[in-house]
Amino acid sequence: MFDIQIAVAKTNKYATGESGDTVEVVERPHGGFSVVLADGQGSGRAAKTLSHLVTTKAVSLIKDGVRDGAVARSVHDYLYAYRGGKVSTTLAILSIDLVTRTLVISRNSHCPVLLSRSGGPVTTDTGEFSSPIGIYPMTKPVITELPLEAHTYAVTYSDGLMEAGKRSGSPIDLQALVADCLSNVTTPNVTARNLADHLLEQALTLDTNRPADDMTVLVLAILPSPEKDSSRITPQVRSMDLHIPL
Amino acid sequence: MFDIQIAVAKTNKYATGESGDTVEVVERPHGGFSVVLADGQGSGRAAKTLSHLVTTKAVSLIKDGVRDGAVARSVHDYLYAYRGGKVSTTLAILSIDLVTRTLVISRNSHCPVLLSRSGGPVTTDTGEFSSPIGIYPMTKPVITELPLEAHTYAVTYSDGLMEAGKRSGSPIDLQALVADCLSNVTTPNVTARNLADHLLEQALTLDTNRPADDMTVLVLAILPSPEKDSSRITPQVRSMDLHIPL
Repeated sequence: MFDIQIAVAKTNKYATGESGDTVEVVERPHGGFSVVLADGQGSGRAAKTLSHLVTTKAVSLIKDGVRDGAVARSVHDYLYAYRGGKVSTTLAILSIDLVTRTLVISRNSHCPVLLSRSGGPVTTDTGEFSSPIGIYPMTKPVITELPLEAHTYAVTYSDGLMEAGKRSGSPIDLQALVADCLSNVTTPNVTARNLADHLLEQALTLDTNRPADDMTVLVLAILPSPEKDSSRITPQVRSMDLHIPL
Repeated sequence: MFDIQIAVAKTNKYATGESGDTVEVVERPHGGFSVVLADGQGSGRAAKTLSHLVTTKAVSLIKDGVRDGAVARSVHDYLYAYRGGKVSTTLAILSIDLVTRTLVISRNSHCPVLLSRSGGPVTTDTGEFSSPIGIYPMTKPVITELPLEAHTYAVTYSDGLMEAGKRSGSPIDLQALVADCLSNVTTPNVTARNLADHLLEQALTLDTNRPADDMTVLVLAILPSPEKDSSRITPQVRSMDLHIPL
């Protein structure tokens, strides 16, 4: 039926030791996957600790079977309770839910989720205002739910990517870059990997390889399954790759 | 310094809907990564629920900063307490710990961790007996800790891979396959991806593409960093890929 691809590319702010963004992918207990992206306020160790804390709580709840809207609310309530409304974090959760057979997008971030469905134009997930977690009481996510369909792309990122090139007066236009990449007729099924790498590369170029902030890009693609050779049994193989330069 | 690669390939027992093996990768709060592999007793939904439960507990503890030996003990104690010693699961945790700068291997499984260091022979992590979690009181993991060194490979798997070909009288020899792959002079730095794919492919061939059990292979490779172009700034990019056929 489908070939689901998730690709992440991340780098840290120039001259800092580590990125304040954290991404985790976990399986859902009833089937499917969730990707969590958190961007902790600031940069360096403090930001990393914050985004780590937030993703820890989120993945634990997701793996316990909690629905995504309640996960985002719970993580906010926890952060707000223990840090007294003094620290903020963005939180995006993209889930492939195999029970509802939907793509569920929960966003607490000013960075949108770019969407393209069935070769259609690249739009943002919702125009609704979304605030980060941790600062205001009763914060909740904006949620978009879409049926699983081939040729769907969902792209989100941390603000370091969204604001690339701003300081040098040539701000990145991510919506145009995604549209351009997806409309390339010579490569009809752009992989999540290629799209993620392309966006990060463009952002790094605009920041002349000295990122002004931590940058993370996350791409989820739903592509049609490759044609099967019906003359033989082909087991379905799931794979995962991580690549970490130290 | 290093280029850390983690690759996973998994498939399910022939004619079952889902794999009873679960693999999760998470970041460690003080720096580094942990990969958790659990193989739930039996196959199908019940095995999946079990391995999901075990990895949920494990990743939550790891992300909270608990040391790996205590994670394995805690997960065992939890399973033993709540399931009354009636269900068993294997559990392997491979961690890149950036505080101690070591590779930490914690194993509760009869499947060994194959190791190759600095181009040396392929050995098993330890001859010590290791029992799965959930069945016997006070179960603890066998632990191997190695300094981070380039050209290190750690390979582990679920028993579906280890017992491939057994029923047809031509059992797989994983140690020989890994040794063969790593000693190939034409490809000096075998990637974790290539090694994982090769092992699963060989196992599937021996089971004539009808796996007798769920199969998972997990490869962690520590390779030297690629040469840097010192004439320009090259930001370090971490990446992650998931590929899920539905």
